[in-house]
Amino acid sequence: METTQRVEIDGARVQSLLDELHAIGRRPVGGTFRGLYSEAWREAHARIKGWMAEAGLEVRVDAVGNIWGLVPGREAGPPIVAGSHYDTVPDGGKYDGQLGHVGALVAVEALRRQLGQPRRSLAVLAACEEEGSRFTCNFWASRAITGAIGADEPYQLRDFDGVLLADEMRASGFDPARVAEAATNEIGAFLELHIEQGPILGRMADAAGASAPRIVGAVTAITGTGRLLVTLTGQPDHTGTTPMPGRRDALLGAAEVALALREMALGVGPLARLTVARMEVFPNIPNVVAGEVRFTVDARHPEPAVELQLMESARQRAHDAARTRGLECRVDELWNQPPVQMAPALVETVRQSIAALGYRPVDIVAGAGHDSQLLGRRFPTAMIFTITGNGGRSHCPDEYASPEDCQAGVEVLAEALRRLAY
Amino acid sequence: METTQRVEIDGARVQSLLDELHAIGRRPVGGTFRGLYSEAWREAHARIKGWMAEAGLEVRVDAVGNIWGLVPGREAGPPIVAGSHYDTVPDGGKYDGQLGHVGALVAVEALRRQLGQPRRSLAVLAACEEEGSRFTCNFWASRAITGAIGADEPYQLRDFDGVLLADEMRASGFDPARVAEAATNEIGAFLELHIEQGPILGRMADAAGASAPRIVGAVTAITGTGRLLVTLTGQPDHTGTTPMPGRRDALLGAAEVALALREMALGVGPLARLTVARMEVFPNIPNVVAGEVRFTVDARHPEPAVELQLMESARQRAHDAARTRGLECRVDELWNQPPVQMAPALVETVRQSIAALGYRPVDIVAGAGHDSQLLGRRFPTAMIFTITGNGGRSHCPDEYASPEDCQAGVEVLAEALRRLAY
Repeated sequence: METTQRVEIDGARVQSLLDELHAIGRRPVGGTFRGLYSEAWREAHARIKGWMAEAGLEVRVDAVGNIWGLVPGREAGPPIVAGSHYDTVPDGGKYDGQLGHVGALVAVEALRRQLGQPRRSLAVLAACEEEGSRFTCNFWASRAITGAIGADEPYQLRDFDGVLLADEMRASGFDPARVAEAATNEIGAFLELHIEQGPILGRMADAAGASAPRIVGAVTAITGTGRLLVTLTGQPDHTGTTPMPGRRDALLGAAEVALALREMALGVGPLARLTVARMEVFPNIPNVVAGEVRFTVDARHPEPAVELQLMESARQRAHDAARTRGLECRVDELWNQPPVQMAPALVETVRQSIAALGYRPVDIVAGAGHDSQLLGRRFPTAMIFTITGNGGRSHCPDEYASPEDCQAGVEVLAEALRRLAY
Repeated sequence: METTQRVEIDGARVQSLLDELHAIGRRPVGGTFRGLYSEAWREAHARIKGWMAEAGLEVRVDAVGNIWGLVPGREAGPPIVAGSHYDTVPDGGKYDGQLGHVGALVAVEALRRQLGQPRRSLAVLAACEEEGSRFTCNFWASRAITGAIGADEPYQLRDFDGVLLADEMRASGFDPARVAEAATNEIGAFLELHIEQGPILGRMADAAGASAPRIVGAVTAITGTGRLLVTLTGQPDHTGTTPMPGRRDALLGAAEVALALREMALGVGPLARLTVARMEVFPNIPNVVAGEVRFTVDARHPEPAVELQLMESARQRAHDAARTRGLECRVDELWNQPPVQMAPALVETVRQSIAALGYRPVDIVAGAGHDSQLLGRRFPTAMIFTITGNGGRSHCPDEYASPEDCQAGVEVLAEALRRLAY
């Protein structure tokens, strides 16, 4: 095992940068919103660029607004990159995305100051967009980097006010015709520090007690997400004049499926999720039996075959419920984003870095989407998860990560970068 | 048993009057809409008044727009009244309400022509409003007749466009300050012929076969309707990052209740109805566990004690589901309209009239609201139900009653009126 040369991380600086960013796009009530190419986004963009320059990094902004801060290494070759996104959801919290690029900046700064020039090049990436909260274009940053944005997309995507993405790009100083230039192969490995956005690590920490070593997550995979739209059609009879037997009640069919899918997921195991969370009832009148119900099924599992099996089982279950209740059933697949496995060697580096610092490494599957999802298909990629407070709540103003957990996460990131680049 | 002197009913005239009315307020696509005090309503009002006058009835329009057509009897005393409402729901069919006042007109006309002046006075009532489809004021006619309309109501009720009921009253030639003058005690008995608006009589007829005697319903009671609003509150967690165990999913709670209430109603018996037909999910986003679900419970039974028990059981069931799923539960009673028993002697007259004409009398409970519901609390009241085609569909353009069933209903009404008034 490698020796550990502990890199000192300025936790207070991490917090102050997070606070500074959180104020940009802050709403009078609630959280922060920095949609892609919005005014708040531009302000954050300039601020982050400034921080990187002050830290002595070689700053480069690519064609879509990703900010790269390079520390050239002694050897040739693509840099080891660490970062995350700087956009936010509406009423977003302080940590989602931000901890990843702020943490990378503080970690790389500390490494350079304390250990000098690295052997391999290092880079901080502040990615322009991941959330899909303004335009229906999520993973804009990582799709641009991997060359996955169509040339016409900037001229088609509009925000909820009808504003064209291309116009907002131009207003932000970018040329929508040059999006393709953001594509690059110059990533030797990608490390993303992120809050878990779920309750798993926190529950383990609670179970272990306050005196146990702090838990940090080593992400082994990003779960796959399948999305189905189920439409059950029955008959909108009068609730008073129509006896219970013989009704074709679409709402009861949907209720049966929602309950059954929960049991199905529990039967498959702790990594499986099947959720009915959006439901529309027609005509949705108290005294008319539901004639039609449309609901979504959100199916997740980190193993591709299991994820596909969950979707197929959900589809079957909907058809079964329809058959026994005299309903028509239509199932549309809205999308299927297959799981992504993190690079095993990098995950092992993360685990060892956590342990070397006296923390407790816990393998975990990422349940939500991340920049690492797309970058992980092209470059060796791993993620570090920190405990998320308030039961794991995220995408809301009361998203929380303790200063101690933030600091531990940045320490682990720095240690992993040290092992990879020095 | 009384002898039957068969009154000849002109079924073709019934159909042609129904057709004429159906054209007033007809939409280019779909059914008819004659909201209270609308232009279409005014046209129908004038037309019906004309028909009554042509038939030689003494026509009187009361303070809210109910049209009364009197045939004075030889003896003093309040008239035997037959009728129903002439307003319609949006996209309404040809029969709901209309068969009752058109049938009463044709029946009274035939009685007078064929049997001369009655012993007791007879009256046709074309009631101005029952559906509550334009203003939130259903039973406007029968509430006016029973003196149940508050003096300020015309100045408070508005339609969906914000138009004040008082203004539309004035535009229709009525004085909103004089609503109270429509109240009357001059009803000796009330008979309402109506389509069933449900599948029960039709299913019995199908089971009996084409050669069996035609079925006509003798309504014994109008079901009571309780309406609850249940709010289940859980936690809006991320569907990807939150394991299935430990979720507080409000949608699953609602699903459990909806399914359980159906079983509960089936257990109570064929007259019980418990329906969840309106459901709103928050935030209603595919990847956020339902944090709150609000749904209505529609509870019906013709026996007051059972109806109350259904509501109480539904309330309990919602609280039980909430408890086991870690949800908060709030149940609001939106209203409770107790059942109304029809007058036993009048129901018996209806039964005997059906049988005397060679039809098959079937006792039935009315599952929807009717003018008879309010009038039945003050005056001896009974209803005659005819088979409704298309599986009992109503409040829609494909509402249907066969000419033969319409004719049988009007014949029964005429025979019952003969027995009561001659």
